[in-house]
Amino acid sequence: MADTHQAAGPKLAIMAGGGTLPARIASAVRGQGRGVFIVAFEGHTDPETVAGLPHLWSRFGAAGSILRRLHEEGVGEVVLAGPVKRPSFTELMPDWRTARFLARVGTRALGDDGLLRAVVREVEEDGFRVVGLHDLLKDLLTTPGPVGSLAPDAEAERDIARAVEVARAMGALDVGQGAVVQQGIVLAVEAIEGTDAMLERCAGLLRPGPGGVLVKVKKPKQDRRIDLPTMGVTTVEKAAAAGLRGIAVEAGGSLLVDRAAVAETADRLGLFVTGIEIPQ
Amino acid sequence: MADTHQAAGPKLAIMAGGGTLPARIASAVRGQGRGVFIVAFEGHTDPETVAGLPHLWSRFGAAGSILRRLHEEGVGEVVLAGPVKRPSFTELMPDWRTARFLARVGTRALGDDGLLRAVVREVEEDGFRVVGLHDLLKDLLTTPGPVGSLAPDAEAERDIARAVEVARAMGALDVGQGAVVQQGIVLAVEAIEGTDAMLERCAGLLRPGPGGVLVKVKKPKQDRRIDLPTMGVTTVEKAAAAGLRGIAVEAGGSLLVDRAAVAETADRLGLFVTGIEIPQ
Repeated sequence: MADTHQAAGPKLAIMAGGGTLPARIASAVRGQGRGVFIVAFEGHTDPETVAGLPHLWSRFGAAGSILRRLHEEGVGEVVLAGPVKRPSFTELMPDWRTARFLARVGTRALGDDGLLRAVVREVEEDGFRVVGLHDLLKDLLTTPGPVGSLAPDAEAERDIARAVEVARAMGALDVGQGAVVQQGIVLAVEAIEGTDAMLERCAGLLRPGPGGVLVKVKKPKQDRRIDLPTMGVTTVEKAAAAGLRGIAVEAGGSLLVDRAAVAETADRLGLFVTGIEIPQ
Repeated sequence: MADTHQAAGPKLAIMAGGGTLPARIASAVRGQGRGVFIVAFEGHTDPETVAGLPHLWSRFGAAGSILRRLHEEGVGEVVLAGPVKRPSFTELMPDWRTARFLARVGTRALGDDGLLRAVVREVEEDGFRVVGLHDLLKDLLTTPGPVGSLAPDAEAERDIARAVEVARAMGALDVGQGAVVQQGIVLAVEAIEGTDAMLERCAGLLRPGPGGVLVKVKKPKQDRRIDLPTMGVTTVEKAAAAGLRGIAVEAGGSLLVDRAAVAETADRLGLFVTGIEIPQ
């Protein structure tokens, strides 16, 4: 038994954001014979995520008690999974450990990748290894080429290239990961509002003729353990509702949740979804 | 009389977009003793702009008849004034001259600065001189420093610097001119939706604490004759409604319409409005 445990890997703590991704990770990792421990955040984590699993409900500001509990549970590795909406001030109200951390990184870092990078460093200084979702589930990483049966035509390819240029420039400044382009015109650039809100405003900005494309790429210097662009069925549905004709996400630099369902949804709604290779 | 006319300058054609700017220009130029001719666009130009002045109502697609008329009227200089919302396909329906033009620049250029630059070249090839609004009304150009009685504090200065960085990066890619930053976080980046729509979505994105700042800068390589960032009383009102604390616009690279009214509105609503110098 000790050998099996060794081979499967140390106990994994899942810092669980919203959506179904944390539960998928928990299920897959347990299937590999590893122990898991869920850190859930009130108002962010879906309560179903923790059903039947060892867990702790916590606030973001309670870094001290979270890390203490992970030591007690014998956790060896930590993964960040699922989106977290911007936490409120109350949720962030710091314990002494969090206060020391915030004093060091500065409250101006709150809300962008700088904060997540600092969280990763802090957790690692406590002796835990922080891993990426793609280390746990290799087939989550987007692969090159079409996901469904449709592929971009020449005009869509040009729009994709323009959107990649814009999204990469914003990513280099640690702003956003997404952009929407139609017929060469940049309709929308993503900042803190997130991809869904960006898609919602595109419907009113489309011109007649071929619909636009959504592109999501990771930030050029992004640590793949944190906040990789993620897409799933919902993204396809929202892109279709906005009148777009397709979605391109970075192969090897984004997560595709439930590939079969994404392919089915894309085919049914008449959109292409494709993985594109970006020179690093 | 001929000498006076010579000194005041040749007859000026004003390609009139929306708002009050075209009428202000017409009034100022006539005050200098110059003749004006207004080219108005249905659905875009305020009908009051042409009241009592020689003018032509036209469609964007009728480049041939517009240019012919400017020759007949003895126009020497042309200025583009006021914003133009994206024209519909019907408005763009080309005459033969416009079709030749579109065939050369390509319909993919429609809607961004590439199109306006091409329009300027086309008008100049016909023998007209295209001038900038700041050539006609020097005091329209934003000057450095506060417009009203408030000035940015240290935190607002940091937010301004961050927004300048983002807006310049987007401008370099010919996307937009504006960004909103609060406490170091980029709340919104402007694309085709325009500044007003960008401000409207900021209200829902603000966090507690000091409000954000709106920054507008010209694109790094922008021809100052076309589409300089413009701000006036409406911008101040919309920024206040969005919960922002101030506005910074590029000194020498943006137009400030009705400076006295902007200062009064900013003071009344408690916002700073300031001209910032950007190294070119």
